[in-house]
Amino acid sequence: MSQLVAPIQNLIDAFSRLQGIGRKSATRLAFQIIRDDGEIAKNLADALLEVKERVRFCEQCANLCVSSPCELCQAANRNRSIICVVESPQDLLAIEATGEFSGMYHILHGVIAPLDGITPADLKIKELLERLRSDEVKEIILATNPSVEGEATALYLKKLIEPLGIKLTRIASGLPMGAQLEFADKATLGRSLLDRRQL
Amino acid sequence: MSQLVAPIQNLIDAFSRLQGIGRKSATRLAFQIIRDDGEIAKNLADALLEVKERVRFCEQCANLCVSSPCELCQAANRNRSIICVVESPQDLLAIEATGEFSGMYHILHGVIAPLDGITPADLKIKELLERLRSDEVKEIILATNPSVEGEATALYLKKLIEPLGIKLTRIASGLPMGAQLEFADKATLGRSLLDRRQL
Repeated sequence: MSQLVAPIQNLIDAFSRLQGIGRKSATRLAFQIIRDDGEIAKNLADALLEVKERVRFCEQCANLCVSSPCELCQAANRNRSIICVVESPQDLLAIEATGEFSGMYHILHGVIAPLDGITPADLKIKELLERLRSDEVKEIILATNPSVEGEATALYLKKLIEPLGIKLTRIASGLPMGAQLEFADKATLGRSLLDRRQL
Repeated sequence: MSQLVAPIQNLIDAFSRLQGIGRKSATRLAFQIIRDDGEIAKNLADALLEVKERVRFCEQCANLCVSSPCELCQAANRNRSIICVVESPQDLLAIEATGEFSGMYHILHGVIAPLDGITPADLKIKELLERLRSDEVKEIILATNPSVEGEATALYLKKLIEPLGIKLTRIASGLPMGAQLEFADKATLGRSLLDRRQL
């Protein structure tokens, strides 16, 4: 006997397919499930199936929702003339948490990353352009990450949207609040000098 | 909107209940599940339910199996006079992989650890003593880990089994094969001196 019984092996295999979970972690999780008398396994199984069954993209903003259009797109108190373009639903939550934005969102679900095989066609860009056909939208905020891919994606979107005559902005890059110049990386400090603002 | 929709939250909660998976990892896993077009979610859900439904303890050795007694306990070619006591099914696999043992096993499913609330009653000790009632067993190898808890558990079992007049042995501790004295920890090197063997 050199293997665990099939159902345990299957569970270890299934856990191993999750990102960041290797063989050893998967084995540890499988034995936690086996030892547990409670509902961990059932809760997780139910949650997995429910998410696959019920969660879908909002037909307008491509956010994840259970009924489309999503709550945000249906909300009466949001400014419909401004769309903030983000990479992921988590980024949307981060911006909402600031309380500084009351417009609409559009979620790309990724960034252009040719090395990972992600092209513009894999993102929700077509859907964004579709939304810009109405005259309602006056400004687009490009809020992709200030990373290589995020910057490239913002540039790509700029080229597409600029001809439409809609105001385009990019979230500011610079020193994080509370940071110390002494310890800032060169790229960030350089950008904060370039983008200095009038007081 | 400050939260993801309920099914996603539920999935994040369910992942968070797994050991070693924090809120951030759980969120990352949930989004992997949502993005994935394949069968990751269904495979994992099925594996979870199957393991809880089919896996049980072998009535003899307490190993995990789908039909009791387990394959090892039913095997005709094993030496039934010697039982190797281990902490976990993974330890059994490790010993089997050495090819140095052809006897039977008994799995405790843990070690005595009062600080974690694990008492002898939580382990498969009663079942072990039950097996020793037959005259068949001539030797017990205590193969719990050479850790504080493993040593304490071995000592506890020694006190229980000694009166029965069965030969008791403990796996050897000492320098790992290929190690260098210079870099060995004091406890291991000390033990390898105490337990030196005649050549």
